Amino acid sequence: MIKGAGLLLGSAGALGILQGCGGSASAAEPAPQEPTPQQLSDPRPSQFPYEQHLAASYRLDVAAVKEAAYQGYYEGGCCHGAYKALLGHLAATAGAPFDALPLDFGKFGGGGIAGFGSICGAVLGGVLVLNMVVQEDTTKLRSALLTHLIRWYETNPFPAYVPHAVHSNEAGRTTLPFSTAITSLQRPPNSHLCHASVSDWCAAFSVSASGPDKLARCARLTADVAGKAAEMLNEYLATKAFVPAVMDDVSKRCVTCHPASSTAQPVASGMRCGSCHGDKLTNHF
Amino acid sequence: MIKGAGLLLGSAGALGILQGCGGSASAAEPAPQEPTPQQLSDPRPSQFPYEQHLAASYRLDVAAVKEAAYQGYYEGGCCHGAYKALLGHLAATAGAPFDALPLDFGKFGGGGIAGFGSICGAVLGGVLVLNMVVQEDTTKLRSALLTHLIRWYETNPFPAYVPHAVHSNEAGRTTLPFSTAITSLQRPPNSHLCHASVSDWCAAFSVSASGPDKLARCARLTADVAGKAAEMLNEYLATKAFVPAVMDDVSKRCVTCHPASSTAQPVASGMRCGSCHGDKLTNHF
Repeated sequence: MIKGAGLLLGSAGALGILQGCGGSASAAEPAPQEPTPQQLSDPRPSQFPYEQHLAASYRLDVAAVKEAAYQGYYEGGCCHGAYKALLGHLAATAGAPFDALPLDFGKFGGGGIAGFGSICGAVLGGVLVLNMVVQEDTTKLRSALLTHLIRWYETNPFPAYVPHAVHSNEAGRTTLPFSTAITSLQRPPNSHLCHASVSDWCAAFSVSASGPDKLARCARLTADVAGKAAEMLNEYLATKAFVPAVMDDVSKRCVTCHPASSTAQPVASGMRCGSCHGDKLTNHF
Repeated sequence: MIKGAGLLLGSAGALGILQGCGGSASAAEPAPQEPTPQQLSDPRPSQFPYEQHLAASYRLDVAAVKEAAYQGYYEGGCCHGAYKALLGHLAATAGAPFDALPLDFGKFGGGGIAGFGSICGAVLGGVLVLNMVVQEDTTKLRSALLTHLIRWYETNPFPAYVPHAVHSNEAGRTTLPFSTAITSLQRPPNSHLCHASVSDWCAAFSVSASGPDKLARCARLTADVAGKAAEMLNEYLATKAFVPAVMDDVSKRCVTCHPASSTAQPVASGMRCGSCHGDKLTNHF
């Protein structure tokens, strides 16, 4: 019912009506921190999706989002890092309705949702904020952005981000050269699932999936993913168009024989098939 | 800044202040649809998580959620069906802040997020609403509920729900006996991923993954999942406790040799290992 507030004050014309009437001292002399009529008629969370509330020239600061995402990782995990960095930046720079939403909503998504190893939480955080902003229409632009973020993740070499300030939870605890040779630590996950992404990377560098090197990797990956989502959103806001990456050639071959429309072993997927079905990549055709 | 509305009106004491002052006709005689002071001081979306705003006796009507989820599936997919059914029910029966949130937020999640085949959208819709309500604390209750919903999904035989009214998009188009012998159509997905869940079921019944039988299955599955989330939420609200299902014995054996803490092939996952790694279930130990 808060959503009626703007309407109510709007119909009253201006806050002067409140200020000018003598009902009580607090009404006659509102404290400085009380909202103005313009603020009370700000866009509300129910007025979704939110690109309708952004100025035509609005763009995100990708570098600021990346650093906030890296730092946020150590406050509440990968999904929280990406979600809070993106939403917090939108709230700080674009205002309502972003500033009316809880910044801690993404904490559930860490480690592939409550540590289950499902979709990478950084990707999920990015997906949730992209979904907040971008309108779906007949050209399926929202789906294009979501598909692109997930598909980009599958093949992007992580981690890449070099933070401005190493978080105190990390400093002095890592064994791998994150600060001096980060490119030597990069691997594409080949899957958008936390389980596969983390397990592969940790095995490749002989580190624990619950230790400080894993945390340092995922903190930087969170910055990479949040930054990518911000870049994609900027491209979309500038052009109101977006062309997603297409399925890889190996997976395309899989769904040639296993299209979703088949009644014999149909496959419903946009993922890279080889991540789980490596045994089908040879001697199967 | 909308979030300041309750504070402002609260400080003004009562709507009588607005009604009693002579600033304008619209302020003196508010239209019937304008919010009351109580409504303007309702809980706001930023006051998260939302169990703090629910009466101690509040419970969801599981049957109502199920039917709404089934019908909602045909409006916008599995995630939308589950999300809108749960959030819409909370909005209708508990009010703010649920009624200040967009009911269409979940449409992005259909088919495992924009059709990508990731986490089942019905599960994701349930996860998002459970996360709205349940507070995480030192006993990790929110994580317990999320883990349980996903793990339950992996082994529950879907579909089970029999709708009160078959949706017009479905009526007369299916070939399988959804209305007369639904138990003959049930299979546990063995995975929480849309891709595996849909592909396995369609192959088992020799139907297309893009045809009306698949839609009818997933519409009922959406009702099953949303209903389960509602049941779990009721149990949690009644007891403020929740014990999640544990990992299956086969997967437990996997992580005995591959714990997350290992530095040699550590595994970060709560999923059923056999879903993707069937080749490791024999001749691997």
